Amino acid sequence: MGIGIDLGGTAIKGGVVGSDGAITEFMTVPTNRESGYDKVVVKLEAMIRELSKKSGLPEVVGIGIPGIISGNGEMIISCPNLGWQNKTLKADLQERLNISIKLINDATAAAVGEFYFGSAKGKKNVVLLTLGTGVGGGIIINKQIITGAHGVASEIGHMIVGKNFYDCGCGKNGCLETFSSITALIEYVKMSIREGDNSSLKQTKEINGKLIFEAAQKHDALAVKAIDRMCYYLGIAISNLNDILDPELFVIGGGLSQAGDFLLDKIIAATENQLTYRGYAKPEIVLATLGNDAGIIGASKIKKND
Amino acid sequence: MGIGIDLGGTAIKGGVVGSDGAITEFMTVPTNRESGYDKVVVKLEAMIRELSKKSGLPEVVGIGIPGIISGNGEMIISCPNLGWQNKTLKADLQERLNISIKLINDATAAAVGEFYFGSAKGKKNVVLLTLGTGVGGGIIINKQIITGAHGVASEIGHMIVGKNFYDCGCGKNGCLETFSSITALIEYVKMSIREGDNSSLKQTKEINGKLIFEAAQKHDALAVKAIDRMCYYLGIAISNLNDILDPELFVIGGGLSQAGDFLLDKIIAATENQLTYRGYAKPEIVLATLGNDAGIIGASKIKKND
Repeated sequence: MGIGIDLGGTAIKGGVVGSDGAITEFMTVPTNRESGYDKVVVKLEAMIRELSKKSGLPEVVGIGIPGIISGNGEMIISCPNLGWQNKTLKADLQERLNISIKLINDATAAAVGEFYFGSAKGKKNVVLLTLGTGVGGGIIINKQIITGAHGVASEIGHMIVGKNFYDCGCGKNGCLETFSSITALIEYVKMSIREGDNSSLKQTKEINGKLIFEAAQKHDALAVKAIDRMCYYLGIAISNLNDILDPELFVIGGGLSQAGDFLLDKIIAATENQLTYRGYAKPEIVLATLGNDAGIIGASKIKKND
Repeated sequence: MGIGIDLGGTAIKGGVVGSDGAITEFMTVPTNRESGYDKVVVKLEAMIRELSKKSGLPEVVGIGIPGIISGNGEMIISCPNLGWQNKTLKADLQERLNISIKLINDATAAAVGEFYFGSAKGKKNVVLLTLGTGVGGGIIINKQIITGAHGVASEIGHMIVGKNFYDCGCGKNGCLETFSSITALIEYVKMSIREGDNSSLKQTKEINGKLIFEAAQKHDALAVKAIDRMCYYLGIAISNLNDILDPELFVIGGGLSQAGDFLLDKIIAATENQLTYRGYAKPEIVLATLGNDAGIIGASKIKKND
């Protein structure tokens, strides 16, 4: 039995998670990030107290954070979705609750969830890619979570894989995130329409990822081109990660993974075209299976020494 | 006291290595790869027997191989420099010597050497790049050697970092090896001269890496441009590796590292331009210190369970 929290820009979600990975108690409250850091800390404290009524106060509570945590786990260095920099969330909650708090990157939390109870169960070396508004990553090597010397390991979204028509928010050009996120997909479709491409999406006011995938499944040429382009660069990224880490398994998660096999088949094909040792070192590529719960489930499994 | 072997395309080198990392006995014989696999096995057996007269027969002998070793360590899958594929070198030597043999990628062996006794001593997470005829890599994370599920981890030279004017031997385009090896440097200078660039190297019959560096230090514009281009792509590669693994330290080894601080300063500057978290997660980048001995020293430290 453990407690895991998923702190997002919109909602704080938490759960009591059984030893079989099932969420037996679930809570969600709006983050209201604009109310400021102190109010969010109070909400987190209240949620952990409430959940622990059902489970008892555990030794450790893991909290998934959409941002960068310092290498020693003490600080949130940067959390753009909440507008936070250099926040001592771990110490602030520990003081209030008298238990151990572990902060973990949200994509890493999802990877841990998939590793214990999802698509990566039983594997030793796994890389998770979360394709959402941005591109995140979680890396498990020799069954250990990789966080790095400064806590920025598995920031797969900023791997440079080509040259792009717009810069990444991080200031660089060519980051995977600018090719293979929902944002990137929308930007590319909009740019192409501006430049004269014909498409069933031309009259759509608010283009989103779901509409692009629906159009592609109806054979809209631009939508297909945009998704194929996204997968081409994902293929390069996965092949690069394979050359570096050679895991048994890549797991595709995040909002875009809801596109299912239609997307997965394209990612597999694009990756096979780019693999260095095609006949020999071919990793398995699968969809994540825990969906939005992966973060809570993974955070609940974090141990004091992770 | 251990025995380490460095099996190269030209020479087999071996040594008895003390617990302080010093090579107390050293042997080298020509590989004569054209004489065939069986003859090379006999040479390796003879060298290990000879060295063990000085050290006693150790529990394990490590052999650095310029190629791909299977994930379970049993097979040499591919070793282009010796023209080998699917060779059971481990079993063949174990049968003759009645000791345990561990095969290890040569760049990984060099990384292990630097980790125990060289520039990476005392570090926890290290990436070594060997810049030679090709580009190799060795990765140590949480003090563990990373070899991957199929033994192809740390094949950094095949990371795609751009588009190039010639394809890589592996069949892909844009591999780091085609931008940042000695071969790549020479190819780029030759191509530029063919296309009309002026250079002091124009009349040189056999352009090599050393001559290009000498020309650059005398401010030859093409030589400077070629080295800067090489470092630009190394900067992308190191930044990508930093986003993925976030090690404390990158070590630059291989033949090109003999260019010393002139090269190192350019690599550091190029990497800083590409880092995602410039102000926060900046890795140290240093030159390897064990030179050509790193492979022997590293191989001698390989343990049965590595």
